[in-house]
Amino acid sequence: MRFLLSNDDGYFSPGLEALAHALRTLGEVTVVAPERDRSGASNSLTLDRPLIVRRAPNGFYFVNGTPSDCVHLAVTGMLDVQPDMVISGINIGANMGDDTVYSGTVAAATEGYLLGVPSLAVSLVSKSPQDFSAAAYVTRRLVERLLSKPLSRQAVLLNVNIPDLPLPQLKGYRVTRLGRRHKAEPVIPAKNPRGETVYWIGPAGKAAEAGEGTDFHAVAEGYVSITPLQMDLTHYELLPEVEGWLQETGAP
Amino acid sequence: MRFLLSNDDGYFSPGLEALAHALRTLGEVTVVAPERDRSGASNSLTLDRPLIVRRAPNGFYFVNGTPSDCVHLAVTGMLDVQPDMVISGINIGANMGDDTVYSGTVAAATEGYLLGVPSLAVSLVSKSPQDFSAAAYVTRRLVERLLSKPLSRQAVLLNVNIPDLPLPQLKGYRVTRLGRRHKAEPVIPAKNPRGETVYWIGPAGKAAEAGEGTDFHAVAEGYVSITPLQMDLTHYELLPEVEGWLQETGAP
Amino acid sequence: MRFLLSNDDGYFSPGLEALAHALRTLGEVTVVAPERDRSGASNSLTLDRPLIVRRAPNGFYFVNGTPSDCVHLAVTGMLDVQPDMVISGINIGANMGDDTVYSGTVAAATEGYLLGVPSLAVSLVSKSPQDFSAAAYVTRRLVERLLSKPLSRQAVLLNVNIPDLPLPQLKGYRVTRLGRRHKAEPVIPAKNPRGETVYWIGPAGKAAEAGEGTDFHAVAEGYVSITPLQMDLTHYELLPEVEGWLQETGAP
Amino acid sequence: MRFLLSNDDGYFSPGLEALAHALRTLGEVTVVAPERDRSGASNSLTLDRPLIVRRAPNGFYFVNGTPSDCVHLAVTGMLDVQPDMVISGINIGANMGDDTVYSGTVAAATEGYLLGVPSLAVSLVSKSPQDFSAAAYVTRRLVERLLSKPLSRQAVLLNVNIPDLPLPQLKGYRVTRLGRRHKAEPVIPAKNPRGETVYWIGPAGKAAEAGEGTDFHAVAEGYVSITPLQMDLTHYELLPEVEGWLQETGAP
Repeated sequence: MRFLLSNDDGYFSPGLEALAHALRTLGEVTVVAPERDRSGASNSLTLDRPLIVRRAPNGFYFVNGTPSDCVHLAVTGMLDVQPDMVISGINIGANMGDDTVYSGTVAAATEGYLLGVPSLAVSLVSKSPQDFSAAAYVTRRLVERLLSKPLSRQAVLLNVNIPDLPLPQLKGYRVTRLGRRHKAEPVIPAKNPRGETVYWIGPAGKAAEAGEGTDFHAVAEGYVSITPLQMDLTHYELLPEVEGWLQETGAP
Repeated sequence: MRFLLSNDDGYFSPGLEALAHALRTLGEVTVVAPERDRSGASNSLTLDRPLIVRRAPNGFYFVNGTPSDCVHLAVTGMLDVQPDMVISGINIGANMGDDTVYSGTVAAATEGYLLGVPSLAVSLVSKSPQDFSAAAYVTRRLVERLLSKPLSRQAVLLNVNIPDLPLPQLKGYRVTRLGRRHKAEPVIPAKNPRGETVYWIGPAGKAAEAGEGTDFHAVAEGYVSITPLQMDLTHYELLPEVEGWLQETGAP
Repeated sequence: MRFLLSNDDGYFSPGLEALAHALRTLGEVTVVAPERDRSGASNSLTLDRPLIVRRAPNGFYFVNGTPSDCVHLAVTGMLDVQPDMVISGINIGANMGDDTVYSGTVAAATEGYLLGVPSLAVSLVSKSPQDFSAAAYVTRRLVERLLSKPLSRQAVLLNVNIPDLPLPQLKGYRVTRLGRRHKAEPVIPAKNPRGETVYWIGPAGKAAEAGEGTDFHAVAEGYVSITPLQMDLTHYELLPEVEGWLQETGAP
Repeated sequence: MRFLLSNDDGYFSPGLEALAHALRTLGEVTVVAPERDRSGASNSLTLDRPLIVRRAPNGFYFVNGTPSDCVHLAVTGMLDVQPDMVISGINIGANMGDDTVYSGTVAAATEGYLLGVPSLAVSLVSKSPQDFSAAAYVTRRLVERLLSKPLSRQAVLLNVNIPDLPLPQLKGYRVTRLGRRHKAEPVIPAKNPRGETVYWIGPAGKAAEAGEGTDFHAVAEGYVSITPLQMDLTHYELLPEVEGWLQETGAP
């Protein structure tokens, strides 16, 4: 069993270390992660320059690229054998609802999925986690269950969010849909030393649709949230309406 | 009527210039685009540093950030009035099928959509376009039609791909679903001058699902492809299966 | 006569445009400049990725690299014929005293000089220049004088700083030595939106050695300052002292 | 005794680790180094965004900036007490002759020197060092000698290059001037996957002035080379000639 691990916080992240440690006894672990923090990288691929791989003293590989670059490079060229599973994380901070669009953690797993490998994105719902041990345990158990009984699809993409609670306080698992956030908060203006205005991207919006069945709800209740994801962005419901609109508004 | 324009090729791209020119008589055009080529940027947001806006001699604003940053910054802070529509492009090169996941062109429009603004991503299916005039005309017509009769949803996200043909040879419009590509081609190894191996991300895979109804098919037949997109990545069909799997594989 | 122009403010800078305009009637002008603002780049060369050259609508070439990269690339590979002179600028802001160590404007000229080409760095002493016409005129005159009577060394490197005054108010030229600045001001702490402390590099120190004969003094008096530079950093005066110290402090 | 250490290879470099280890018993060691490889960074300072400091598990601080940024930030704001000495290295690869202009290793030490702190840049003359122990020993001895008997100037900047030889084979120390290199080799063209030409910066030129007394010569003979550096780039010898030229070529 071969695991490919990545993340978006950088190869030195304690969350990644905890993940590697947790999975090592289940199979062969290879880590290929960004050389620096790439949170918010989404599915970006580096197309304007080549990538280089280096090896840290602990055996982790690091790449001067994005989370997607790391998994892409590992699966399509660097590794001799295709991994059986891609696991991205353990991210410091939630990736729920619309966050999944921007998340580099989710993107690393997405890249595995699009390349045909079952993939997990794992996030710990805390901005300053005290302890990765519960999250590492949970991830290990999920991987064991996937190994003992694979989900029927050849490649599945699961987005896992884990409350920052001691293991005994976790209430269990919930299969969820993504919630929705309110619009992002406004950019935050500041001045640089030359007196020019600069803008920081502001925080994500608060949860807007966080009812029963959503990832927001499950985590708030103390459950591990598991959301299966797919990457076909077609808005199928809207196809007939757009079709009608096109006919109605006439010739080109 | 206020239009916010962006792209991922950079503020100096002739495709953006053609777009701005085409829309100027329909309303007020503001361009906020990346200072350099950010193709492949996907929905990445710059979280580790603030952004700065500068103004080019032609009045376009450029930002040291990603396509998503540009639209996010414009809509959530820089512009006094919210735009009525976001249009991203005209991209040099197709954004069909799985490309939409990686595309910065689509991402700029997605950002508008997630912030509640009707948005279009426009791509010209050519690596070295001779002429943006047909694509600019088509975009203008679509915008006019959206203005004359809005689609019912408050904010809709349309992904438009235009064959690189003279206007008279375009066959019309097709409302499509996204096709699928085969897995990406392998990374392309090269040597840097120090003799180290570096890797270029390889080309996207060839079209795998390109049958009737897909964007690939429409464009290949000479039609403008219009695909409505949405950003909820939940794999709804798979929810019951994952639920069953979770119960079957037992206690945590 | 062939001129290679570059700068550190980016290829779109009005100072570069003014410079190109001023020199066009004296010879063939080629502009190869950074694609974005690279102020403070010093002599940095990009060694970890390859560079790409693109051409703007106005014929200027722009490169995804530093000022030194631009001149290096142009002289050692891109141009068919070696330029007769490299001129960098017109920079927005002074490059006097210790600034020369950090300046990308000076670095672009330094790169020409190290590659054997007579080179000028030109800076306008103003943070928000009203008008480049006086500086452009002065630069043109200096170039004409260099053409009519070259300085004896094969390649000379001149650092030119021009007060931001209307031409009639400029008092003339002064050949100067570099002044010295006081230590830089402290870094300026700020908070990012996550509440983490970040630091802006603070302003350069005030002039410390700005007496008669220095560039600071000349410019303050309304003169154009011309300082010949060299790039041998050996501290010759100190060689005997270090030799003595080495002997005195004994065996390895 | 407080030592501030930095480098340009990144905070994870074994050369930096060896340096920290060697100096730890002589005083308090603080490491502030770039988060990634910044070879070739020269004296560049990051002016367009703020810097952030993070702490690695081994206690080293790393910064999303250049070598100069690291020392600048540490000395002008981050550290409570000014360091007594800045040591940069141990670089993997020589920094001799004209290399000093481009080197990030030398730049980190230069920044200390310009901020009034005695500073050393240390480089191991090898592209793939087998062993840092001799270089670490040599550096430690030099620091001890500087502590036992400071050089008379308040702040001195020494550029040290160490042959990649086992300690017993090192022949001793030589105080040297910088040699000179031939012009750099041409850029190396390559193709990116889109078929566009890209250019790698080529290797530095071969030693041109490498006679007795130069750093090139000392190292080639098996000696540790010590070159005192200064940062006043004024070409004093040339001042009278430029003065004469200015008068001769007449009125503005």
